[in-house]
Amino acid sequence: MSTLQEGVTSQTLDELAINTIRTLAMDAVQKADSGHPGLPMGAAAMAYVLWTRFLKHNPRNPAWPNRDRFILSAGHGSMLLYSLLYLTGYDLPLEELTQFRQFGSKTPGHPEYGLTTGVETTTGPLGQGFGNGVGMAMAARHMAATFNRPGFNLMDHYIYAIVSDGDLMEGVASEAASLAGHLKLGNLIYFYDDNHISIEGSTSLTFTENRGMRFEAYNWHVQHVPGNDLEAMSQAIRAAQAETNRPSLIIARTHIGYGSPHKQDTAEAHGTPLGADEIRLTKEALGWPSDAPFFVPPQALEHYRQAIQQGETAEQAWLDLKAAYARQFPELAAEWQRRIDRELPQGWQADLPSFPPSEKGTPTRRASGKILNAIASRLPELFGGSADLAPSTNTLIDNATAFSPEDYAGRNVHFGVREHGMGAALNGMAVYGGLIPYGGTFLIFSDYMRPAIRLAALMELQVIYVFTHDSIGLGEDGPTHQPVEQLAALRAIPHLTVIRPADANETTIAWKVALGHQHGPVALVFSRQSLPVFDRSQMGAVGGLEQGGYILLEAPQSRPELIILSTGSEVELAVGAARQLQEEGVATRVVSMPSWELFNAQPEAYRHTVLPPSVKARLSVEAGVSQGWRQYVGDGGDCISLEHFGASAPYQKLYQAFGFTVDAIVTHARGLLQ
Amino acid sequence: MSTLQEGVTSQTLDELAINTIRTLAMDAVQKADSGHPGLPMGAAAMAYVLWTRFLKHNPRNPAWPNRDRFILSAGHGSMLLYSLLYLTGYDLPLEELTQFRQFGSKTPGHPEYGLTTGVETTTGPLGQGFGNGVGMAMAARHMAATFNRPGFNLMDHYIYAIVSDGDLMEGVASEAASLAGHLKLGNLIYFYDDNHISIEGSTSLTFTENRGMRFEAYNWHVQHVPGNDLEAMSQAIRAAQAETNRPSLIIARTHIGYGSPHKQDTAEAHGTPLGADEIRLTKEALGWPSDAPFFVPPQALEHYRQAIQQGETAEQAWLDLKAAYARQFPELAAEWQRRIDRELPQGWQADLPSFPPSEKGTPTRRASGKILNAIASRLPELFGGSADLAPSTNTLIDNATAFSPEDYAGRNVHFGVREHGMGAALNGMAVYGGLIPYGGTFLIFSDYMRPAIRLAALMELQVIYVFTHDSIGLGEDGPTHQPVEQLAALRAIPHLTVIRPADANETTIAWKVALGHQHGPVALVFSRQSLPVFDRSQMGAVGGLEQGGYILLEAPQSRPELIILSTGSEVELAVGAARQLQEEGVATRVVSMPSWELFNAQPEAYRHTVLPPSVKARLSVEAGVSQGWRQYVGDGGDCISLEHFGASAPYQKLYQAFGFTVDAIVTHARGLLQ
Repeated sequence: MSTLQEGVTSQTLDELAINTIRTLAMDAVQKADSGHPGLPMGAAAMAYVLWTRFLKHNPRNPAWPNRDRFILSAGHGSMLLYSLLYLTGYDLPLEELTQFRQFGSKTPGHPEYGLTTGVETTTGPLGQGFGNGVGMAMAARHMAATFNRPGFNLMDHYIYAIVSDGDLMEGVASEAASLAGHLKLGNLIYFYDDNHISIEGSTSLTFTENRGMRFEAYNWHVQHVPGNDLEAMSQAIRAAQAETNRPSLIIARTHIGYGSPHKQDTAEAHGTPLGADEIRLTKEALGWPSDAPFFVPPQALEHYRQAIQQGETAEQAWLDLKAAYARQFPELAAEWQRRIDRELPQGWQADLPSFPPSEKGTPTRRASGKILNAIASRLPELFGGSADLAPSTNTLIDNATAFSPEDYAGRNVHFGVREHGMGAALNGMAVYGGLIPYGGTFLIFSDYMRPAIRLAALMELQVIYVFTHDSIGLGEDGPTHQPVEQLAALRAIPHLTVIRPADANETTIAWKVALGHQHGPVALVFSRQSLPVFDRSQMGAVGGLEQGGYILLEAPQSRPELIILSTGSEVELAVGAARQLQEEGVATRVVSMPSWELFNAQPEAYRHTVLPPSVKARLSVEAGVSQGWRQYVGDGGDCISLEHFGASAPYQKLYQAFGFTVDAIVTHARGLLQ
Repeated sequence: MSTLQEGVTSQTLDELAINTIRTLAMDAVQKADSGHPGLPMGAAAMAYVLWTRFLKHNPRNPAWPNRDRFILSAGHGSMLLYSLLYLTGYDLPLEELTQFRQFGSKTPGHPEYGLTTGVETTTGPLGQGFGNGVGMAMAARHMAATFNRPGFNLMDHYIYAIVSDGDLMEGVASEAASLAGHLKLGNLIYFYDDNHISIEGSTSLTFTENRGMRFEAYNWHVQHVPGNDLEAMSQAIRAAQAETNRPSLIIARTHIGYGSPHKQDTAEAHGTPLGADEIRLTKEALGWPSDAPFFVPPQALEHYRQAIQQGETAEQAWLDLKAAYARQFPELAAEWQRRIDRELPQGWQADLPSFPPSEKGTPTRRASGKILNAIASRLPELFGGSADLAPSTNTLIDNATAFSPEDYAGRNVHFGVREHGMGAALNGMAVYGGLIPYGGTFLIFSDYMRPAIRLAALMELQVIYVFTHDSIGLGEDGPTHQPVEQLAALRAIPHLTVIRPADANETTIAWKVALGHQHGPVALVFSRQSLPVFDRSQMGAVGGLEQGGYILLEAPQSRPELIILSTGSEVELAVGAARQLQEEGVATRVVSMPSWELFNAQPEAYRHTVLPPSVKARLSVEAGVSQGWRQYVGDGGDCISLEHFGASAPYQKLYQAFGFTVDAIVTHARGLLQ
């Protein structure tokens, strides 16, 4: 096979080192009896060039803030990354590679952030890593613009990624790529593993677009390089680094399963072990010196391990720079450190607003906008925006500028109509550090970004979602825009905290919770329509929101015979119904239940105080599907819910038509008590 | 304003007719006090050219199968479409336009399929209409390739759409565009309403990619035309029609809110009424003859209404062609008619396979593949594929060819790694007619296509999803690929039927249900791993699946003291536990509950037979979040569930580690009974 010979004319140290990755990948997949050998074998050479000649990193301190980031967006090729981490001296011993894909190992099927040192973000669902990188590059540009000073490039590095055909086909990557080009993120350098193979066969089956031209259209700098030509690859990386105004795509023609006499350039090499015989033949073809599995030539290891010394030297130089910076700009340096350490500033809560009682009230989305603006100056790490709905989601920081190529210090991000790209970018910002990213859109469009939300939850990242227009209360835009099942669908995601406040003051506490919640994303869910601001002198204290659910309106003598549980805009109706029922002599308690997750995390004693087991007559009221409410209302209770799609009309009409009125609740409650 | 004068030099009939759309849109939005006047005003001219000079349609028979399709992907501009439908003589009287966005009207905020005659698909969530059109164009090419004969172009028409900046920014449109270019869908002609404005302001804020170049990279035919130049637009449409090998994008430079002296070319014109004063000024600027709202000049109406005669003539010519076709190809004509009428063929169920009992069993995904192949020859309308996972989802029809530019008669669609584009395309195929579309991917990636699934549900379309690898049973690929909350999230969607069969024979019945379920999508949820095929001679008949839940294993004397409810791969464990409990003397019933939606639709009497209210000890067993199960297990019951993300390991290990074993169920059940 002539392609086999590309760059492998004699067993040079380069080749030996590259083949070490290939053989480790083959062997680990074979031992696990599952996994993806093809990508590591095909992309080994370019990864080798990047990691040994360019990547600025310190294996002994993977948290060094000014390191280059490396993302394996095509996460199925995880053995490539694990091999590099082990070989360059991260805390990932060879034994872990032999435990590839086993329970409790540090080498899961796809790279997992937080589990394996050196893994910058969890990848696997295609396109996500691509979008994460864009978020990292945005964060890097913002941090540099905020903290760098002439002569002191405190933050100055690249974001690299290896992306695959699948990544480029996914819409989330298209969104992120367009945004990256617009933002002129020259610190982004992606390697496209152009191997012509996807799972169903040749990419000619379905992926024949001109990818280079497409990325040029996005304002990217595009280069074509043979995937195994080390010098050409080095040159391309240098050219990409030199291009500071455009993100770079290096299209590397690679060969999946490189070296395998029978499986190279076939879909078979993608996702199954090569088999013992083929591995033997491949090692022979590669001129590999041993047939022992997981054999690592000492000279190859030594070569890779230079990364340790180089990394420590590089970090030390940077530490010196930082020390000089701190002498010259002590306040700035302290602020930078605070943000990198993810510590909220002293007194950050001081400006959290409180809203006076008001019958007329305000939409919680608008209250949210006021809160955001009140706290923004004390919390410069708040960085975000909206997917082209800022005027509606109230996510703009008024006295801040837009984040743009002319002003990377700006904090207001215009994500465009790119919810999924926004979600993936937010994740990248969150892992990058120094920022608390937030992103807004209508609640209905949480569906568009759901895979990114799930990954934020899986990585337990501090990302704040501002989801407005949260029910049929959206009104005239109709059923395509009215969330009905989105609350249930978000609550179903593990590690995601959903909060749907009932009034402006609950909104303040919801923001407070979100800002303090560093391990896991929080979805703040707000109304389009005005909601009264409750008079707390007559009702439960708003701090109860921190417990997820609390007694908002108490029954006489705290002895309820009926409990109405509600969230968000429907709490107003629950309170109205309870007052009417109390006039009728029905001892009614209203529980505001903005967050199931926070409530379920409370001790049983607290939960039983709010929902005494003895009170069986319980009614939930929420303008969405009832799925999940039964856990609170029990067999003796019932749910007022919306089990069908909405309609286009003024929202008051919809509330009436669909049974969300004080009268309907009262009638339902009476029925429940009989 | 000079732009105002473009093409409006004197009040010609063309101008009068175009301004009729503009003024109707202004007036309807003003009366509703909500809506989007800007798009209809800006796009009126190009829509006018299309609808009066090119669109092949018969307002008196909106169901004519060979009509051109018109999609307003930017559904917020709905008044453009409603105006055209009314003006050209569809069953949409002017009174309905005055009821824009009101409860019960035919003119909701965004166009709704099934509600308003002439609306080809529900649009509004951006990018979806774009993707629907690609699906329609695929369906059109397939139906033409299948039924047309030399001299008899029975199916021969175009798919048109108006798409916006927002549509082009959404990833789903990128996916669909790439697929359309690959498939050389020359029957697709899209008008890009390039008005330089999005909600947050100028598109220069975030959308500066070279859109024309991007679409050329996708292998589209791209033209640039001034949006108000009627002759240039006509010429562009003719050129687009002449280009049969590439989809066309006509980039029309338009002006949002065209004619409004103060709001044209501003974001203000996008989504709020112009206001009475500005409307007056706009009508003056347009030289409009009346200040009465909803004024329609008789000569304009007469001009538009020529569509009726033209449409009837066109359809008659086609009916003549069809009659001749039927004489020459009677069987083909009958088959075509059957498919257009959405009637399943006689005996379509004859080849539904039955699987012999087997301890070793088979993965339900593999059973599904066998079923699909068994029935495919009797059901040529089955048309679909997978998002680059065909070998894993078992969605390939073995003795059929790939749908490709060289063979549009092929039935196996290679969607590429484009789940969202696939979902939107499936919807377009379903509304097009003549097909039962299906699409496969891993269950986890249902998240990637969720907005399209929701629209299938909202439109109540017959779309079949094949979601495989449905739990931690996926094993080594790990938590990024293991669905945990996806079942709950799908069950939350109204009008979507979710079915998770427990063995190969339930899989057969699940397919039978899906094929017979014409009003609403069905998600079939299958295992990666092998599941035993139950011996039905010892157990409940598999037909019980049609009721959603049924008694699979009965307690002695049909007097259960404990009921275990389960779905899919966990039913095997439930049965094992029940057998052990029965040996211990615990009268245990196992209910297989593959579909909540089907079960909840049963009469109460049936539901109570399966789940007698007197039996309080109930245990649900499903390897996913418990959300929603409480409705079945009640206060006295409990759920064995997975409330956290999975892990990377062989699946047997995960089942053990996470408590899904016969022993764990038995222990849990014993606890419940105490």
